[in-house]
Amino acid sequence: MEELKQRYTKFLSKRDAWKKIEPFWINNNLPQNLVPHDSTIYLAGGMPNESLFPIESIHINVKNSPGVSNASNSTALDINEKIADGQLTNIWTYEQNKDKLGISQAFQYGESNGNPQLLKIARDIITSIHNTPQYEDWDVITTNGSADSLYKVCDLLFDEDSVMLMEEFTFPLTTTYLNNTGAEEIPLKVNITSDVEKQGIDTDYMADLLDNWSKYYPEKPKPKALYTIATGQNPTGVTQSVAKRRRIYDICSKHNMLIIEDDPYGYLKFTPFRPEDPDYNPYESGEIDLKVYCNKVLSPSYLRFDTDGRVIRCETFSKVFAPGIRSGFIVANKFFIKRLHNMAMCSTREPSGASQSILTNILLDMGENYQKTHPDSESYIDGWFEWCRKVASAYTHRRNVLFQALESTDAFKKHFFEISEPSAGMFVALNVTLKPEWKTVNDYTGAAEKDAYIKDVMDYLNWILLEEGCLAVLGYKMTVNQKFSLHRANFLRITFAQAANDCILREAALRLAKGIERLNLEYGTDKQKFCMNK
Amino acid sequence: MEELKQRYTKFLSKRDAWKKIEPFWINNNLPQNLVPHDSTIYLAGGMPNESLFPIESIHINVKNSPGVSNASNSTALDINEKIADGQLTNIWTYEQNKDKLGISQAFQYGESNGNPQLLKIARDIITSIHNTPQYEDWDVITTNGSADSLYKVCDLLFDEDSVMLMEEFTFPLTTTYLNNTGAEEIPLKVNITSDVEKQGIDTDYMADLLDNWSKYYPEKPKPKALYTIATGQNPTGVTQSVAKRRRIYDICSKHNMLIIEDDPYGYLKFTPFRPEDPDYNPYESGEIDLKVYCNKVLSPSYLRFDTDGRVIRCETFSKVFAPGIRSGFIVANKFFIKRLHNMAMCSTREPSGASQSILTNILLDMGENYQKTHPDSESYIDGWFEWCRKVASAYTHRRNVLFQALESTDAFKKHFFEISEPSAGMFVALNVTLKPEWKTVNDYTGAAEKDAYIKDVMDYLNWILLEEGCLAVLGYKMTVNQKFSLHRANFLRITFAQAANDCILREAALRLAKGIERLNLEYGTDKQKFCMNK
Repeated sequence: MEELKQRYTKFLSKRDAWKKIEPFWINNNLPQNLVPHDSTIYLAGGMPNESLFPIESIHINVKNSPGVSNASNSTALDINEKIADGQLTNIWTYEQNKDKLGISQAFQYGESNGNPQLLKIARDIITSIHNTPQYEDWDVITTNGSADSLYKVCDLLFDEDSVMLMEEFTFPLTTTYLNNTGAEEIPLKVNITSDVEKQGIDTDYMADLLDNWSKYYPEKPKPKALYTIATGQNPTGVTQSVAKRRRIYDICSKHNMLIIEDDPYGYLKFTPFRPEDPDYNPYESGEIDLKVYCNKVLSPSYLRFDTDGRVIRCETFSKVFAPGIRSGFIVANKFFIKRLHNMAMCSTREPSGASQSILTNILLDMGENYQKTHPDSESYIDGWFEWCRKVASAYTHRRNVLFQALESTDAFKKHFFEISEPSAGMFVALNVTLKPEWKTVNDYTGAAEKDAYIKDVMDYLNWILLEEGCLAVLGYKMTVNQKFSLHRANFLRITFAQAANDCILREAALRLAKGIERLNLEYGTDKQKFCMNK
Repeated sequence: MEELKQRYTKFLSKRDAWKKIEPFWINNNLPQNLVPHDSTIYLAGGMPNESLFPIESIHINVKNSPGVSNASNSTALDINEKIADGQLTNIWTYEQNKDKLGISQAFQYGESNGNPQLLKIARDIITSIHNTPQYEDWDVITTNGSADSLYKVCDLLFDEDSVMLMEEFTFPLTTTYLNNTGAEEIPLKVNITSDVEKQGIDTDYMADLLDNWSKYYPEKPKPKALYTIATGQNPTGVTQSVAKRRRIYDICSKHNMLIIEDDPYGYLKFTPFRPEDPDYNPYESGEIDLKVYCNKVLSPSYLRFDTDGRVIRCETFSKVFAPGIRSGFIVANKFFIKRLHNMAMCSTREPSGASQSILTNILLDMGENYQKTHPDSESYIDGWFEWCRKVASAYTHRRNVLFQALESTDAFKKHFFEISEPSAGMFVALNVTLKPEWKTVNDYTGAAEKDAYIKDVMDYLNWILLEEGCLAVLGYKMTVNQKFSLHRANFLRITFAQAANDCILREAALRLAKGIERLNLEYGTDKQKFCMNK
């Protein structure tokens, strides 16, 4: 810990030092001959006795599998039966099982890093799939989801004169969290290809950039950290290979940079789509059972290579459990976790106890239920991974339906667009084929930004899609630096996560294809329906 | 709104301007002739379909009254009966009643200011007890409890060169939130007296300080805001009279200062303790029914006097519902609320949907149940205030038990200490009578800080109390500026909130009294057991 402190203190922001707590409720410097009473009455902090909470117990009707349920038709009678059968997840005022969270604990003030029960689960998630770091002093802290995690990590590390590297296309809110500290983002080139070894950050570009930093950015300090979504990158959908991860870790070591690994989609891995067998879903067919899923399908976290404590991993329950649970956790070296704990004490405090207890008790029950039917299971945490596996299966199905529908369209067959196949996550990038003559439509040949016409083309497509009834996201709006990336930004990001059913996904594919056909027919011709806002 | 913006932009911190969101998912500047499809398919943001959430429904066993329950003995059978009788508060996937929050909404991503259902409840709380501001453009935002509220309000307003006024004794974490921005706190003199008109901030002191600011603090800018706990102040327990509130509001208007009103204890009001009738509890006897409670007992918020939008009120569900629900809200002018909403989008996002739905649906059911038995009730929100009234009753009972026990002790009868009677809240200040000779024990007569001996005396008392088995908080640890307040800091802050039952409170009183007796016997004599750490 002392060594970590020595190594990483210089990474802390100026504001970290301003987060000072006077623990007025703690008694320090006690006389040596003082023997405290063995049954002290607590008259210190303003904690209401749990008998004054309005809730006695909570009973949760949990699904066995994701998918459309009968929830809307559930009646008190159904619930009654489930209670009688012991099928509900309960949160009692006092829990007999100390791994569970009861009302008396969850609804009381708790430690700002989260309740020990949920912290244990977070640790078990990390170690059970072999993501245990290669050094000893690592720890976890719970947060209000990854938005809160990333905000806090940025606040911990960056000041007005700091720089962070990011994938050139990325989740724009991370830039917001970074800019809130006054720091600046610099884009890294990303290979958007279906070649699984090449896809993701261009490591040659990255190595050269850092080796010759003062040449490229003479007025900026070297970056303190890399922010990366290594698996199912948002918006490109690409996943870094294991070899690439090692290379990136080595580059970061060489330049003494931290790695902030944001991994919201890691549990939603896909095998390649098979056009000849479009319904193929290895999760459903049994090819990917829990063992295969955990040991072969899931990509390794950067933690797995981390010998120095330079990786900060942000994990969330938003995508695989539910966004509204607002729960996530950060894994990092103990020194950073201690500072993040201090930061939580100085701002948000602990995450909602309602969320913590719901999550904790459901995950434990999932474990118990799984182990009942799988006597070979070695850990209760398998129940949670089995849920993740089932959600990955549901997403694979959605992916299959959408891809099959898209590839059946004329627009696809005419090569008006290509599908950039994601290897994980919720998003697909549709690359729009650009016609050479589009460049000249608004005389962009002489434009300062030589790829400016791409914005116009994509805006036009977007308007058509709004008319056709499709709400997508334009790739150029997810660039870190438009100038750097505009020539590769001729894509739409679409998601198959939200649609209520397969029919809607199929209809969406038809609308998308129709929109892209219209783009090809109308843009830059006398059929052009909308004018550009300059 | 434009007027508010003009008036209050100058109050915003530098960092507020750094919180910039590029809403990449929003379509601006649409062509005028674009008619969007009337049934658009959503392929934009990464929101999982609600069928992929693991929860179908949640059923909550809610108490009718605070107090020890049978929860620990509850069985599936009891719950079954309650369900059959429709006695549980339910959260279904889809709620028929649009004022309620269903799983499909609460566990999805929501607006960062909170779900409309909970925002409506917050507004109804404010307006139903006549705290509606005297101007039109006010609004509310939900938060993760008052810690989060105060952190955000400080981040919104203060920079390194800002100053905030605070009561000289106060909740120390607010100083932490303030100092996190680099800003500085200045104490205001507080009258700690049982005279209800005089107690609280010394307004003459405050007026003089501000009128002659440049004389007292020539190097500091004038304060941007006053932070005050107007009702049941922590740790002094005092409550500002209505006349005093008006005076303070006028002073703040004159000097164009904001008022940050922190009100965690406002619903826990007491009538004076009657030594001759120590069990007297007007909540139980029926003297304080709901009407009296809402119209006469509760103190008015500063909002009630606010004509300009200068009041920022922080309200929390921690003390009257449960701390672990991590839910609160801020009431302020629309301009500030809009900036706070932006800040939430840039950091925490919305509070836990689990918390929001539990709170919303329980409060609505409390309302329904109340109105069933009280046909004259005009609003569902009465059910919540009735719960608050019952909690105030439970605290009055606890106050009575503790006071009766304390006043029965020899130490009290010998005037070794006095009780500073709180008019609201969870805390009591016990003022320790100082013996003149204590000043000379460690030759404090020549000390630079003339009241330094008070710290020694109180530390010694604290050590004795730890030995006797009483954990209290020392008043001097809750000072904004020790030099300013040490001569009035000869008190212990104790709470009657946490004790499990009356017996424990009585035992606590005995231990406290014994400790104070021992202080009088031992301190500065050869019986002194512990040495001071200098």
